Amino acid sequence: MVTLGEQAVISQFNLTSYLKERQKVVEEALEQSLPIIRPEKIYESMRYSLLAGGKRLRPILCLTTCELMNGTLEMAMPTACALEMIHTMSLIHDDLPAMDNDDYRRGKLTNHKVYGEDIAILAGDGLLAYAFEFVATQTRNVAPQKIIEVIARLGRTVGAAGLVGGQVLDLESEGRDDITSDTLTFIHTHKTGALLETSVVAGAILAGASEEDIQRLSRYAKNIGLAFQIVDDILDITATQEELGKTAGKDLQAQKATYPSLWGIEESRKQAQALVDDAIAQLAAYGEKAEPLRAIATYIVTRKH
Amino acid sequence: MVTLGEQAVISQFNLTSYLKERQKVVEEALEQSLPIIRPEKIYESMRYSLLAGGKRLRPILCLTTCELMNGTLEMAMPTACALEMIHTMSLIHDDLPAMDNDDYRRGKLTNHKVYGEDIAILAGDGLLAYAFEFVATQTRNVAPQKIIEVIARLGRTVGAAGLVGGQVLDLESEGRDDITSDTLTFIHTHKTGALLETSVVAGAILAGASEEDIQRLSRYAKNIGLAFQIVDDILDITATQEELGKTAGKDLQAQKATYPSLWGIEESRKQAQALVDDAIAQLAAYGEKAEPLRAIATYIVTRKH
Repeated sequence: MVTLGEQAVISQFNLTSYLKERQKVVEEALEQSLPIIRPEKIYESMRYSLLAGGKRLRPILCLTTCELMNGTLEMAMPTACALEMIHTMSLIHDDLPAMDNDDYRRGKLTNHKVYGEDIAILAGDGLLAYAFEFVATQTRNVAPQKIIEVIARLGRTVGAAGLVGGQVLDLESEGRDDITSDTLTFIHTHKTGALLETSVVAGAILAGASEEDIQRLSRYAKNIGLAFQIVDDILDITATQEELGKTAGKDLQAQKATYPSLWGIEESRKQAQALVDDAIAQLAAYGEKAEPLRAIATYIVTRKH
Repeated sequence: MVTLGEQAVISQFNLTSYLKERQKVVEEALEQSLPIIRPEKIYESMRYSLLAGGKRLRPILCLTTCELMNGTLEMAMPTACALEMIHTMSLIHDDLPAMDNDDYRRGKLTNHKVYGEDIAILAGDGLLAYAFEFVATQTRNVAPQKIIEVIARLGRTVGAAGLVGGQVLDLESEGRDDITSDTLTFIHTHKTGALLETSVVAGAILAGASEEDIQRLSRYAKNIGLAFQIVDDILDITATQEELGKTAGKDLQAQKATYPSLWGIEESRKQAQALVDDAIAQLAAYGEKAEPLRAIATYIVTRKH
């Protein structure tokens, strides 16, 4: 799929330093997005999880796509922050004792371990509500109709038609050995894919992209979202085989259905590569400007952790 | 505050039948707002609580104010439904074991008792996200900038600056005997007052009301919201004295600070009446058309349960 000319450009593009620079901009915006007022405890709890690090992939995808479609960083930044607020909220609620019951995330205690279950539930609610308020009040130089489109997509992405629906089917599927690849794909397209797709598409909408461009970028995003999950599943197995001393695969322990358990590792690798190839093919019309999105797609299948 | 001419009009206006007719319209809209798709369980859980009855006061206030400001029911109906989704979400999460741990609400088992804690948390998240999606996708014949204003207000009303913040301070205050009337008012203006105010103000914004009208209606709503809470506190005490055989006051049991505990019952009654008088005074300019809002205000201080 990649021609020799494009290959040369790829090798010149430094994804690591690109992501690092973008992460810094996003961290600064997030830091300023949520000042502490009364009652302080809830704001501290929200900030604890929102500013706990992470790749900031969703905000970066949003900013990058907005720029690709000739928008500015400023147009997309409030939505970029909102995407991270929504992602953070879903992590806080997923970690609760009534859900996955996790004590640690990214090496730090989970929100409810620090602030208690009641505050953790409320911190998630607060971040979710604030995400919509933030887009509605902070977005500049974008036509109101476009802002409404983005808000509609964000809502759909979090709700029962998105994250929430994916998490429900995930909870229902645990410990069952009759999960089909259809169900598995439903879970992942809703639980992780939908927010990645919205990150990309929202950036395009805010920049005023055409329906055709939005379709292409949506397909790009859907493909990398699913490829990301397949690679995650593969790494959960191979990382335990290759890196001695590491805990055995978490998915195996939890008896979770995964792509390798349905297709085998080799076929899973092939499927992930095919998805990434198709994702990159969607970017053909955009030339050199699409390098960041191409590099992110390539990184997804080549990453080692 | 009420002149003789107005008094005559009030006696002609039948609030009970007005509320009944409006409730019916709202119930129909809510019934249609949330079709069941895959995964069915989460939609059933969301519908279980959303369609569990109740006065539908928030949607009715929104519709009524929109009409008062010469808007149509159609303009306000999606926001009216969203207000009830948000209110329902706050009840589901407040009832959770980690919060108030209630088994029953309006005579029915609470959401988590029927569907489990995990689904109840997700149903709340789903309703909250859907509220924003619903306003953004379903509102017709309203300028996009007004829709964004309403979304911004809804977000602020649910988040740490509203419902969530009020609930946090309420949880922190339980069992303490040093709660000031300032703190008590902070709790109520955030936990219940903010959503009532937004119900009224959103209806006005959608109808294209002037800043002056919005200010008046906002003051009306703030006053009836606080009066409603004071009367709630009074009824929690007096209902136990008057109606033999009923459970002792829930607030007393929970050692909650209330207005009667700070001010005494007589002074609380006076304050509630003063707030309602001021609320009704805000409506002076609107004549007969404001009868529903006047009657709702009067009902708040005269109700017996």
